[in-house]
Formats: sequence, structure tokens, C-alpha cells
Amino acid sequence: MNLSREKCAARDAADGLAGRRALFDLPEGVIYLDGNSLGALPRAVAPRLQAAVGEAWGRDLIKSWNVHGWIDLPSRVGARLAPLIGAQAHEVVAADSTSVNLFKLAAAAIAMRPGRRVIVTEPGNFPTDLYVLQGLRDLLGDRIALRVVEADRIPDALDEDVAAVVLTHVHYKSGRLHDMAEITRRAHEVGALALWDLSHSAGAIDLDLNGCDVDLAVGCGYKYLNGGPGAPAFLFAAERLHPALRSPLSGWMGHARPFEFIDEYEPGDGMLRVLCGTPPILGLTALDAALDAFDGVAMADLRAKSRALGDLFLDLVAARCPNSGLQPACPLDAALRGSQVSLSHPDGYAIVQALIERGVVGDFRAPDILRFGFAPLYVRFVDVWDAVEILRNVMTDGAWREPRFSLKAVVT
Amino acid sequence: MNLSREKCAARDAADGLAGRRALFDLPEGVIYLDGNSLGALPRAVAPRLQAAVGEAWGRDLIKSWNVHGWIDLPSRVGARLAPLIGAQAHEVVAADSTSVNLFKLAAAAIAMRPGRRVIVTEPGNFPTDLYVLQGLRDLLGDRIALRVVEADRIPDALDEDVAAVVLTHVHYKSGRLHDMAEITRRAHEVGALALWDLSHSAGAIDLDLNGCDVDLAVGCGYKYLNGGPGAPAFLFAAERLHPALRSPLSGWMGHARPFEFIDEYEPGDGMLRVLCGTPPILGLTALDAALDAFDGVAMADLRAKSRALGDLFLDLVAARCPNSGLQPACPLDAALRGSQVSLSHPDGYAIVQALIERGVVGDFRAPDILRFGFAPLYVRFVDVWDAVEILRNVMTDGAWREPRFSLKAVVT
Repeated sequence: MNLSREKCAARDAADGLAGRRALFDLPEGVIYLDGNSLGALPRAVAPRLQAAVGEAWGRDLIKSWNVHGWIDLPSRVGARLAPLIGAQAHEVVAADSTSVNLFKLAAAAIAMRPGRRVIVTEPGNFPTDLYVLQGLRDLLGDRIALRVVEADRIPDALDEDVAAVVLTHVHYKSGRLHDMAEITRRAHEVGALALWDLSHSAGAIDLDLNGCDVDLAVGCGYKYLNGGPGAPAFLFAAERLHPALRSPLSGWMGHARPFEFIDEYEPGDGMLRVLCGTPPILGLTALDAALDAFDGVAMADLRAKSRALGDLFLDLVAARCPNSGLQPACPLDAALRGSQVSLSHPDGYAIVQALIERGVVGDFRAPDILRFGFAPLYVRFVDVWDAVEILRNVMTDGAWREPRFSLKAVVT
Repeated sequence: MNLSREKCAARDAADGLAGRRALFDLPEGVIYLDGNSLGALPRAVAPRLQAAVGEAWGRDLIKSWNVHGWIDLPSRVGARLAPLIGAQAHEVVAADSTSVNLFKLAAAAIAMRPGRRVIVTEPGNFPTDLYVLQGLRDLLGDRIALRVVEADRIPDALDEDVAAVVLTHVHYKSGRLHDMAEITRRAHEVGALALWDLSHSAGAIDLDLNGCDVDLAVGCGYKYLNGGPGAPAFLFAAERLHPALRSPLSGWMGHARPFEFIDEYEPGDGMLRVLCGTPPILGLTALDAALDAFDGVAMADLRAKSRALGDLFLDLVAARCPNSGLQPACPLDAALRGSQVSLSHPDGYAIVQALIERGVVGDFRAPDILRFGFAPLYVRFVDVWDAVEILRNVMTDGAWREPRFSLKAVVT
């Protein structure tokens, strides 16, 4: 392998997405490889929030629901998300958190498959997905059972008792990518629905929900979509399911005519029915502004860069950190990997802390995983070079062995 | 009655809360009497949001969960809300929307009263409360039944089939105040739980949840609490219930050890277990900043002013708008009324629109209710005088009869 920082710089110079980095407000001296956990700050956010607060809320007060279009913000943000995930505009809305939305759609899936009680998922799925399914099971009792099987056994676990398969498309820890088209097809073969959590995919992977005939999906607004900490999440349901779709969280914003204030719930049109409470306007405004950075981006280009960044990182670690004890803990084939690279090391936690001190921000997942996310809108090829150089130095000089790096704090 | 604008100004001059108005950024030329729908903008919000975005998110990125205390924000905001509602600090958290939170606690109530399937509520309750209960009933089937009875018949509707009474403390349309202590006591007599929606009370009424032995409560962050459009809501559960409390929305933030990423859900300590997804930091930051305006305020003083403002409004309408067709549609006794006044008029919608055009912002609720909310932190006695003067002019000159005022738009 014949890599150099100059060659990385040349790749940046030739990168059609390189100009997008200027749309983000990135701190000096930091190589941020944790956009898979919290996306960086788009420059468009602060002025848009300032206007939403000072001009809309402050000046126009209650009228803002109409004159500033607050009331339609869940749909408008959903429509902007749609092309990023291969959906139609009216199939997506932004609302609530990923966890709450998963509850809605998992319950809806069970209701849409009467007589079936099994939800198939995998162990080690992102924990909140498992916890939400467990909560739904505890609430519904005998009407639901979880069948938790390893990823490679999922096709065998599908039968006519299965109401839905609920999986995270990109595994948060290993970065492994599920075959969305194939698993969805297999689910449909037995009459089950496929519900995908796109939290670690949306904004970095070229998704094609319609092309894969996906039934239902949820996803996170604050990772590769850069909507800010705890940003509103999103929900997708294929148009063909809209007539049968019912949300168990039937709040007033999901009502057909919320401002008539009648006593009986009646589901709103299409995806409006999966809205629940009053939309979180500040969070939606930030997410809406963040999506500007995707305007005009071809998702295939984004995905190509995502793969190239991950490949480069793995190649550089192999070439420049031999005998470091760092092992790949993700698929080496970029086609099977999300926009992150995972390495394993018994002292992974301390190494991540030492890297952070030197300005390379990745994160750690127990028991031994170092995660590095590559947000293709703002991570450069030279960043990957520099990050691996710093990793190499940390492994060589053993700085991470300092006891202070082993003191665990809360991390997300 | 011997009222004058000068006397109103004198009451403002003597008002211990008068200085609080300067903490809000209120538009010129507007008398805002809709803080019961969307509270006005506290001046503290914009700079705090700017810091949360520019300094925390932008500079410290993922580290902000620790170094800026984001992870504890639901509890910290809850602890600040607690004294406003007569609760202990560890009995309150801020999270999600009122609708989502009501679902959590209504489901929890049913689970805490095994063998009982009835939830008692009233017709005309705030619609989202009814819709959420209907959604829970549709989800749980035979395990739950709604008993919807008029307010005055609620005590008679309580029996040993009842798991919970779910009521909004202040009625959104009539402003009528339920007797929280008495209904809670009657619920307890039959072994049921009392779950109160404080959306139209918190921040304007001197609530005493502990003193009333209330079991569960939810409430809205964007009305009298001024947390901004779609602000996070809050949840309360009495400490004595914490051991048995389970949320059906068992997301990762409600887990005992969310960052261990284990597969099995285990409820977190106390109220942490009713958290679900990642906390909405921007919304929580705005709400946290908004609560500064309550620092050092005695809720009894706030309530006294709230009652006085409402009484003044009713007195002035009676004295200065005779033969206008406007009728009181709320309790005349301030002790039975929340911090709003409702009037009825067959042309209420057009009258509200004409008032808005002249700078008096109230709102309309079908079929014929004009609502005027009195947020005691920023509404002055002279505002009440001026508002009624403008109402008098609108009724006298008949401006509201212009057809354009009858064109309905979406309002909240």
C-alpha cells in the first residue's frame, strides 16, 4: 500500500462533497469521528433558531403556528428527509424520539397482523430498540412474544406466527449492515412486516425504502442528520399501509381535525396520524436547518465517500498500527459496513480517552470496542490520515496507559 | 363599582410581581392574553439556547453530555418544577410531550391496580387526554374501560373497579378548577389512583400535589411555564409509588444503566424510569431558562394576582360591555377558576379575530368561547383595563362584523 497524507489531500481536492464541510461549525484542533453519535453543528442552525425564538415566538407568539408554519413542521421536515431515505414525501414525518416512535410502529405492526404475536429481532440490537419491544410485550402480555435470534439465523426464524421483523439497519457497535432488501423480502414471504431502525444509517447511507419495499421505519435526527442533541426523530410508513395504520399514542396532533376539540379520536390523514403531542418546534427548527446541508447531495455520492473513508481508515490502521493489539471489529467489506469503523482492544476505553485528549473524538462501547464514525459531509480524507497518525502515536508511546484515562464517566 | 385605569396602574405599582414582566421579551402594541396556550418569551431563553448550540454542541460536541450536564437535564428541570407544583425535587422529571407522558402514567396506573380496569374521566376533558386514553384502551382491549362522566358526577362514578381518575385540573375551555384534594381523597377511598393533568395550572396556580396526596401528574411546559412552542412536558409520581412504577415506554434513558448497553431492560431509579428516548436538549434548555422567571416567586402570590386579574377582567366586562351579548362562561368565583376567563358569544370567533387585529391576543374555542389567559408574571392590571376597553370598542363599533374576521384559520 502506498498511502500518504498528500494523496489524502489530493482525494479531498477531488471530492465533490468537500465544499459541504464549510456548512459546519467545527471546533479547531478536533478531528470529529463521532458524528454517528452526535452530528456536528451546521452553521445554519443558530440563525434559524434565533429567528424562531426572537421573531416567531417572541414577536408573533401564538400566531406563529399559522404565520410561521409551525403546525406543518413535522410534515415539512419529513418531506425533506424522504429523499435521503428513498421514500415519498408524504410517507415521512418528524416527531418525538426514536424510542417513542418505535413503540408506535411496533404496536401498529402487531395490530396490522391480527393472529400473529411474534416480533423477531436480534440480540445486541441497539438497546433502546430491545427495551421498547420488551416494554410493549410487558404491556400487551400474551398478545406479543419476542423472538430474539442472531443475525444470520433471522431468515430461519421467520414463519407465519411473525407479525414483524424489527432490526437496526446498521449495527451501532459493529457497524454491520443488514441486507434490507433481502430481509424485507423474506419477511414478506411469510406475511410479516419489516420495521427498520435507520438511526445509524440515515444521512450517511444511500437508503431506498421504497425500492426495498420496506413497510415501516424509524430513525434518529441527531446522528448523521446533525439535528442537534436529542433532536426529533422520524417515522416512515409505506403509503400502501396508511389506511390500516393506527398509532397507540393517539394524541391530538394525530387527530383528523385537532382544532375542533371533539371528544372522539379519529386518525388524521396518512402519516399525520402517527403524530402525538404538540410538535417540539425548537428541535424541529434545528433539524430543518441541519437538512440544508443535504440539499443537492446525491446520496450515492455520500455513500461512496462514506465507504472510501472507512476503507482508508482500516487500511491505514493495518499499515501503520501493526502489533498494536487493535483488531477490526467491523466488516472489512465496505458494502457490508455502515459509515463507521469499529476496532477492538482490551484497553479500548483508555485508548479512546487518550485519543480524545489529543483531539481525535471517537467513542467506546463496552466491552472493548473503539468506534469511529465518518460523516461524509464534513470528514475529510486528511482527517482520516491525521486520526490514524495520532492513533499510531498513542499506541506507540503508550500514553493511554496513564491511569487517568481509565476513569469512566457517563458517555453516550 | 368604581374602577379606573389609574386605579389599575396603582395596583401595578403595588404589585410585588410587577418586576417580573421585565424578564419577558414582549412585542410592542400587544396585550397578550394567550399565555395559557403559548407562554411569552423569557429574555433568558435566547442567550441560553445560543450557548447550548454554539458553545456546548458546537465546541464540545459529544462531551457536552457530561461537561454541560445534558444527561441530567430532565432531572434538573424536574427539580426546578417541583416547588411550583408542591412536589419533592426527585418526584418530577421533564420529558416528551404531555400526551406521551399521560400514556405512560395512565398505563402505569392500570398496572399498579391489578384487577381493576376502569379509568374515570370527564367529557370535554382536554381532547388529547381523551384521545390518549382511547388509544390506550384500544391497545389493551378488555383490560381497560373508560367511564366518562360529567364533572359533578365523578364522586358517584368511583367504585372498586376504578384503577384511576384522570382529569385536567383546570378545564381548558371553561377555566373551571377541579377540587384536587377532594377528588384525590375520594379516589383513594375506593383504592384508585388520581392522575392529574396540570397543563392549564402549572405556573399560574398554587398547586400542592404532596399536600393533596396526589399519585400521578403530567403537565405542559409551554403554557404558563413559558418553555417555548412544543416545550418538553413533565411527569410527577409520588415517591411512595416509585417502587411499583413502570413505564410502558421503556426506552434506554429510563434504564438503570443506559450506558452499559445490555439487552435486558431494568427500570432506573425513581423517576428516571419514566424517561424514554434521548432528552431533547434544545427544548429542555429553553424550558430551564424560562424557569428562571419563577425563581424566588411565592406561588401563593402568583395565584393571588392570577385571581385578581381574572376578577378585574370579569368586573370590567360586566361594567363596561353591557348589552354586548358577551356572557361569562367560566366560574365567577375566582376560587373555582383557573388563571383564565372565558366568555361566550355566538360570534366569538370573529370577535377574537377583531381583538387580535387591535392588539389584544386571546383565543377562540368552538363553538362560542372567547378565552383570555392571565399569566401573572407578565400581565399587568392596566393590560386588563386596556384589553376590556378595546373589547368594548370592538363590541360597540361592530368591527368584528366585517366578513374577513369570520374566515377561520388553523389556531391552537
